[in-house]
Amino acid sequence: MPYRAPVSDFQFIFDHVVDLEQVTKTDLFAEASRDVTDAILIEAGKLCEEVMAPVQRNGDLHPAVLENGVVRSSPGFSEAYQQIAEGGWVGMSADVEHGGMGLPITVTTAVNEMMSAACLSLQLNPLLTMGQIEALEHHASDEMKALYLPKLISGEWNGTMNLTEPHAGTDVGALSSKAEPNGDGTYAVTGQKIFISWGDSDMNTNTCHLVLARLPDGAAGTRGISLFMVPKFIPDENGNPGVANTLKVVSLEHKMGLHGSPTAVMQFDGAKGWLVGEEHKGMAAMFTMMNNARLGVGVQGIGAAEGAYQQAVSYAMDRKQSKTPVGDGAGTIVDHADVRRMLATMKAEVFAARAISLACAASIDLARATGDADHQARAALLTPIAKAYGTDTGINVSSMGIQVHGGMGFIEETGAAQYLRDVRVTAIYEGTNGIQAMDLVARKMMDGGEAAFRLSEEIETAAEAARGSLPELAEDVWGAAEDLRETTEWMVAQDMNDRFAGAVPYLRGFALALGAHFHLKAAVAEGADGPRTALARFFIKRILPEHNALFAHAREGAEGLYALSPEDLVA
Amino acid sequence: MPYRAPVSDFQFIFDHVVDLEQVTKTDLFAEASRDVTDAILIEAGKLCEEVMAPVQRNGDLHPAVLENGVVRSSPGFSEAYQQIAEGGWVGMSADVEHGGMGLPITVTTAVNEMMSAACLSLQLNPLLTMGQIEALEHHASDEMKALYLPKLISGEWNGTMNLTEPHAGTDVGALSSKAEPNGDGTYAVTGQKIFISWGDSDMNTNTCHLVLARLPDGAAGTRGISLFMVPKFIPDENGNPGVANTLKVVSLEHKMGLHGSPTAVMQFDGAKGWLVGEEHKGMAAMFTMMNNARLGVGVQGIGAAEGAYQQAVSYAMDRKQSKTPVGDGAGTIVDHADVRRMLATMKAEVFAARAISLACAASIDLARATGDADHQARAALLTPIAKAYGTDTGINVSSMGIQVHGGMGFIEETGAAQYLRDVRVTAIYEGTNGIQAMDLVARKMMDGGEAAFRLSEEIETAAEAARGSLPELAEDVWGAAEDLRETTEWMVAQDMNDRFAGAVPYLRGFALALGAHFHLKAAVAEGADGPRTALARFFIKRILPEHNALFAHAREGAEGLYALSPEDLVA
Repeated sequence: MPYRAPVSDFQFIFDHVVDLEQVTKTDLFAEASRDVTDAILIEAGKLCEEVMAPVQRNGDLHPAVLENGVVRSSPGFSEAYQQIAEGGWVGMSADVEHGGMGLPITVTTAVNEMMSAACLSLQLNPLLTMGQIEALEHHASDEMKALYLPKLISGEWNGTMNLTEPHAGTDVGALSSKAEPNGDGTYAVTGQKIFISWGDSDMNTNTCHLVLARLPDGAAGTRGISLFMVPKFIPDENGNPGVANTLKVVSLEHKMGLHGSPTAVMQFDGAKGWLVGEEHKGMAAMFTMMNNARLGVGVQGIGAAEGAYQQAVSYAMDRKQSKTPVGDGAGTIVDHADVRRMLATMKAEVFAARAISLACAASIDLARATGDADHQARAALLTPIAKAYGTDTGINVSSMGIQVHGGMGFIEETGAAQYLRDVRVTAIYEGTNGIQAMDLVARKMMDGGEAAFRLSEEIETAAEAARGSLPELAEDVWGAAEDLRETTEWMVAQDMNDRFAGAVPYLRGFALALGAHFHLKAAVAEGADGPRTALARFFIKRILPEHNALFAHAREGAEGLYALSPEDLVA
Repeated sequence: MPYRAPVSDFQFIFDHVVDLEQVTKTDLFAEASRDVTDAILIEAGKLCEEVMAPVQRNGDLHPAVLENGVVRSSPGFSEAYQQIAEGGWVGMSADVEHGGMGLPITVTTAVNEMMSAACLSLQLNPLLTMGQIEALEHHASDEMKALYLPKLISGEWNGTMNLTEPHAGTDVGALSSKAEPNGDGTYAVTGQKIFISWGDSDMNTNTCHLVLARLPDGAAGTRGISLFMVPKFIPDENGNPGVANTLKVVSLEHKMGLHGSPTAVMQFDGAKGWLVGEEHKGMAAMFTMMNNARLGVGVQGIGAAEGAYQQAVSYAMDRKQSKTPVGDGAGTIVDHADVRRMLATMKAEVFAARAISLACAASIDLARATGDADHQARAALLTPIAKAYGTDTGINVSSMGIQVHGGMGFIEETGAAQYLRDVRVTAIYEGTNGIQAMDLVARKMMDGGEAAFRLSEEIETAAEAARGSLPELAEDVWGAAEDLRETTEWMVAQDMNDRFAGAVPYLRGFALALGAHFHLKAAVAEGADGPRTALARFFIKRILPEHNALFAHAREGAEGLYALSPEDLVA
């Protein structure tokens, strides 16, 4: 079965779960009327179904390769990419001033999820460019904006993020790439960067590298890092790709999945670069880009989960095996209780993750449109949850998708395995999910937990309102919000390492409480007898209870971990 | 870091957790003295470390291929296999009468785990042969035993299981392969079988297929199925491989992992076969083989988990990244709380799964040695738990192993991804884990839950005894056993489909209770301050609490699942 864009689910969530109208009634997003956003979803859905999904398997079977120093992308990718670019999809949320559509991130997030489901490795190219566009919008000079943004927004050029070095991954501050002033306002950037997705592309006429490097007077650690624009081809006086810069792709990685996305080792040899933002403030600039990129990566996980789910449900509705417990017993395996359980789990987790990602996006939009600090804090809090829970859901659901297929799931031609192999990296890149959880309990609780408490109150208030129509479900969700509040209180009272010890289970417990909240909102909107209510009941009664164990784990602290020495672990 | 055989952990579990002495003091296993079993573990460990582990990656990079109708195995596999065969490892638990070592399954299970960790795809060959040896020992005529067993036990020949057909996977009874009597006591077997692991082998001089097929007068369904020995080469009068039988490998599958193990589509065209056991009693014979093969597959999962764990802990002790919260902060990532949490989770789950598999094996041995029905029932009950929890642990731990490696985990050269890709199938073959769970709540509770209740009492009794030394842990384990008992009571009172709806979470909850029990036994044996006690505390305080949610899920029944129609699932 080919991918089918879940347009109506997005519309439902926009209307009843995350309140897109609150976003589109702001001045900033006044143009994004319901008609516009519907048209966007439908057009994007068509692109995903008809253009991107058909090349998904090509990327896996025929990985991007390095030939004579440049990347040759997978068959069909370039043609599909041109349609993405021509449709204006790279610049969906970019400033209208430079050719973007100026759409809310909420809408872009829905489109990104569909594109991720259709072809994750291809989608990563525009996703990274979107991140770069945003970084430049916030931090570049007007001159740099004028030069780069139109080309990035049109999709002619692509953007990359060059952070990681062999000994500087999570610890970006340990990087050793250097930038020396050339005396003419430009810089000579030298160093090696690894894990650079789409570090070169034959689908784009230029590749623009945002590179973190240290100036001669830069301090050690993250405070001494600056950000540079280092294009593959230096733009000429007309803004077209000119002479080649002194940088190259050294090699491409051989990866577990995502074969269609070339992952490059990049070498910069005194490459000409331009400072983005202020000297030594590179991390701040990169963080702007990274926060929304984290949401984007979370959504990659959800897309892969949706794709894997659709394939599994299609298989289950087609495959006959053993007498079923329904009707005359001649049905397909979808009628077996355990298969139904797996499919319901997949669908319920996808809905929860999707609603969280869109709620996060709506807060980003509202923060931008209103300047309100509470929206800003809510967005910042939801970002690591959206990233980690979205990508974990991608992994769990795609692995369950394999299971639904039985033996066929292990056969590559089926396509089920590719979802798992592709999505596995999303829990790692853009900050591992462990780092997301640590961000949640540390940086995102520098407010003493205020934003988290507001969110647990939001859940409780909605649950109170639901008591009339769905009392049992409302009670469970209310209880989960209480547990979230108590665990958050515990968290903010601890030393940092005790928080870190329980950060990952805390994040998942938080996500389950949020997921249950959004399921309940959907159920309330639909009424007691609909399928969304049945799905909400499934999630709240069968998945949400896990939050107790997760929060208990979260509150155990660090001591028990260090009772096991490294030597004990090896023994 | 190369694989290091965890010999001392097996010895500890033998001595303090599963009581191997109870097995070896029976007449049947009197030869298996402590000296003998120690020597076996040490020798097997050497074989795994020095011979098998070095070819692990070869199997992945250079899959077995079909050339001119025969399989060419991965480089180095044949040489490694010859050493397995020459060491007598194929016949570890086989009858001494035909050349086997006659060792307890408990010891064989430990060896199988080590071999699985070292090279899963190669280990699958002797594992299947072991299953065939057992089936022949139980069901073959003396003549067939005399002909086949010595060659299988020596490892000259390998054995396969031919059950699955394109439309008969879980529902074996739907198979369409036929057997016609030739009039000379032999049969002509015709049909196509899929997913036949090691369906051909250049490491063995003959491949012996056990094939399920239906005789002309065989009833529909599983009751009309008979089992046949169908060798690739028909043994000549001297018992050596003679003329080629009319069977062939049609193709090999392109799989997510386990590339070193050829997975064949087999075509039998009136191939000459010999009946094994009685006519129409093929399923019973196959089940003998399958039960212990299920334990063997569970142990494959544990082996892969151990291998993945060892690689992850080695990486974590080597990799420096960010200031650590320990000492001067200059340590490696093993000192970060979240990394320590992941490694402890991996180690604790491996221990739990390992103890369960060895407890299951000990019950098999005791049942065989004593004929006692309680041991038999305990073994039968533990088998699906050992299979499903062992393989789920394989998947979860190997995925966590990737995570510990960060970006390097997604790069194939690292080796972490191979563990996940290889082990993924173990949750599917030999009966999917869903089928294991259904077996647990249906067939294994035809005694009204008696065996399960005995097991929960066993846990409670041990927990009571532990109250003196480790009261807090003892209380938690005791409580989990109570919940297990209550949920089992609920299960046996339900209709079958309500049981099936919660079978998978019930099985995992059962496994966590058992795992906690074995951790507690280890802690009691070691005393309050040792690393095993710290690991037990980790498992009991941070992983065991999940049992509440699992048992709650298990008790939800089927109705809520069927409230979601297939159409709802697709929408």
